[in-house]
Amino acid sequence: MSYTISKASLDRIQELVAQQGDEELLASVKGLHPADIAELLDNLETKESQYLFERLEPELAAEVILEVPEDRRDELLGNYTGKEIAQELIEHIDSDDAADVISELPEEVREEVLANIGDKEQRSEIAELLTYDEHTAGALMAKELVKVHADSSMLDCVRALRQHAEHIDDVYAILVVDDHDRLVGSIQLKLLVTTSLRTPVKEVYDPDVISVKAHEHVEEVSRLMEKYDLVMMPVTDERGRLLGRITVDDVLDAIREEETEDAQRMAGMGVLEYSYSNSSLWDMVKKRFGWLAVLFIGESFTATAMGYFEDQIAKAVVLALFVPLIISSGGNTGSQASTLIIRALALGDITLREWWRIFRRECSVGLILGVLLAAVGFIRVAVWSQFTDLYGPHWAQVAGVVALSLVGVVLWGNLIGSLFPLLLKRLGLDPATSSAPFVATMVDVTGLLIYFSIATFFLREILI
Amino acid sequence: MSYTISKASLDRIQELVAQQGDEELLASVKGLHPADIAELLDNLETKESQYLFERLEPELAAEVILEVPEDRRDELLGNYTGKEIAQELIEHIDSDDAADVISELPEEVREEVLANIGDKEQRSEIAELLTYDEHTAGALMAKELVKVHADSSMLDCVRALRQHAEHIDDVYAILVVDDHDRLVGSIQLKLLVTTSLRTPVKEVYDPDVISVKAHEHVEEVSRLMEKYDLVMMPVTDERGRLLGRITVDDVLDAIREEETEDAQRMAGMGVLEYSYSNSSLWDMVKKRFGWLAVLFIGESFTATAMGYFEDQIAKAVVLALFVPLIISSGGNTGSQASTLIIRALALGDITLREWWRIFRRECSVGLILGVLLAAVGFIRVAVWSQFTDLYGPHWAQVAGVVALSLVGVVLWGNLIGSLFPLLLKRLGLDPATSSAPFVATMVDVTGLLIYFSIATFFLREILI
Repeated sequence: MSYTISKASLDRIQELVAQQGDEELLASVKGLHPADIAELLDNLETKESQYLFERLEPELAAEVILEVPEDRRDELLGNYTGKEIAQELIEHIDSDDAADVISELPEEVREEVLANIGDKEQRSEIAELLTYDEHTAGALMAKELVKVHADSSMLDCVRALRQHAEHIDDVYAILVVDDHDRLVGSIQLKLLVTTSLRTPVKEVYDPDVISVKAHEHVEEVSRLMEKYDLVMMPVTDERGRLLGRITVDDVLDAIREEETEDAQRMAGMGVLEYSYSNSSLWDMVKKRFGWLAVLFIGESFTATAMGYFEDQIAKAVVLALFVPLIISSGGNTGSQASTLIIRALALGDITLREWWRIFRRECSVGLILGVLLAAVGFIRVAVWSQFTDLYGPHWAQVAGVVALSLVGVVLWGNLIGSLFPLLLKRLGLDPATSSAPFVATMVDVTGLLIYFSIATFFLREILI
Repeated sequence: MSYTISKASLDRIQELVAQQGDEELLASVKGLHPADIAELLDNLETKESQYLFERLEPELAAEVILEVPEDRRDELLGNYTGKEIAQELIEHIDSDDAADVISELPEEVREEVLANIGDKEQRSEIAELLTYDEHTAGALMAKELVKVHADSSMLDCVRALRQHAEHIDDVYAILVVDDHDRLVGSIQLKLLVTTSLRTPVKEVYDPDVISVKAHEHVEEVSRLMEKYDLVMMPVTDERGRLLGRITVDDVLDAIREEETEDAQRMAGMGVLEYSYSNSSLWDMVKKRFGWLAVLFIGESFTATAMGYFEDQIAKAVVLALFVPLIISSGGNTGSQASTLIIRALALGDITLREWWRIFRRECSVGLILGVLLAAVGFIRVAVWSQFTDLYGPHWAQVAGVVALSLVGVVLWGNLIGSLFPLLLKRLGLDPATSSAPFVATMVDVTGLLIYFSIATFFLREILI
């Protein structure tokens, strides 16, 4: 992450750290946004980043730690005791961020931090947040919010806001609850200055407030916030009692993370825990080798499949030459199809019940693409055979077999690519697992059977 | 998009449209959020959706049209004249949304709509927004905002807010400008109720306001909003004069769009203009065939490459059997690498100047993965050859050649996959174009040369 930091200023900071020039060091980061300081720390070596981080004012350090990639927080806090983390950092940040930081700590430190949070309310709030499963609304929400009773007045809203404004950075709306603390509506902040303070809350609040339950998956939360253009989403328990709120910046992070995970799955690999540059060599090998090995075992059936046709290949070596071309065309078509379907599912553009419509449509698309590629393939072989004897005297028959195989393999690849993600979704698995390499492997094995069957049938007594 | 609409209610709506039961029809959509009505329209046939849309109250229709996927707006507005669009719809919506709707219209209607906007100020604002290039901050911004002069007081802020509150749905902050209308700071709304109204704006505004220039690319805008956790971003001209503001919901849409485009490029196809379900068969074929043909032509060099080794294959058909296995292993490794690098570039996790570090690291990763797969490959051939004569008496030598080729091809695939996106970025092209199929094609052709060279060298006088 090096958008704002120049190489020169990074060098200068490293020099200052080496010289322990604390005063100038702090002066050089003064006025920087916490997100920029975090970026700077991410670009320093472990020891250097610790040195600088430990010298920041506690309040600033607390803001900075939130912006540091999760995988480097551990490192930065390496020299801190649980007590120091609790009293110097946690105290200054919102409950959701605090829970976030604490959940990344090693188990033994986690308990110590929690035990050392001075404010009882904050401690129990954070403890509550830590109980929710990862990737749920509960785990993402903050407890800090401004709420009023439905029977109060706008003046009460102003009072509530004044009381909380200091602790809550981003207030977007005031939430309205009933006697049982159930969410009944929301009030836009601008109403506080556009209506009289004597107005009862009842008369102005918007009862059509959209909320989610705490167990809801983050993906669903982000889908709803996107759909309804929300910057803040209240979170309730099963009975509708207000528990907290999620802000759009947290959802943005969640979306980016989700997209990266999907991209990694679609590339046929495990999901990396950390970012590319913060993953160790060993992490990388582990996450990549597993799927590569699975794909390799799958693909090794191509050798078995071709083994069945060894005699034909021995008689007509020309057939072997087109193997990569034909199977890769099926694989490429399949990876296009699977990507289209995976994205459309992720965006909610298509649903499982449309599978029959998708099947018919992809039959047509696959057939058209197959015929077009077959034409290109036929021309390719025909033109080449004017200049080389590689394809022998029966080049026209060979070209015909290649073309016909392309139609079959491309159509087949397109169907596997489009239907397999739907099947995975139906089975409750992540459609993104139906990666391009995975589809290509399936198509390779079956594509070979299609190709050699067609060749055996049409070239019998000519070449074979 | 069918999350909230049940099949039953959709059927009922279609029935009502067919019977022209207007009253009940409108009753059944009453109380629905505009985004839900849009979803409903997206699930109806063209005629049906027009019928329902034309019967909505203008204000509601205006909100609904914004939520309808861009590719279906045209259709819904099919029976509207330019004058009707201007007076019934445009009048009710923010300038950025208006410009958005108008820019999707056919050219001749566009002019008519603009000419028929009654409010002169609105007309010139929209006309200005239409001049910005697509995918820039200018094209995404809205002109509506609340601003005050730096010399004013908090009371002036309240007045400004009251004046604009009705027309602007989502006010997140008040912007502060100087004598030349240059942006100098911002004021959080909560300050309006937590400070005295006599306080001069000077004393409370935050001068560290982050803004973008109008020509900035949307990706940069979203990166900044994510980094600094902003819900609103002011937009200025080159001299820092305030032009408008971008809200986070628009950025969210832009991010999703960008991610989908990247996914399509990475799957080796053109970027679809519309969503999967709204793209015509012909669109789909066009966007997919172009790249497939390019990949096909590229891949056809595998036939040429194998042609050079025709004699060797004729003598040792067993070599041909492992062709798909070896080249696909290189392709799979390459597609993992390219996805990792493309994502890391998109997220700003790595930059071009780190290419040397990436190169060295991917050499190690590629080598380790290659050796591991080679081991699997050797064992695979060794085990099989106990049960079949397919690999002949020299199976150990064949297995050795396969294993050695795997090391070479996997390492090579990994390097191409990781360095090619960097090269594209360096040339100012989109790294996502370095799709998995594209990398696989490059690796296939070169991988064959590696494999057959190794085979020729080690099996000479044994098999060949």
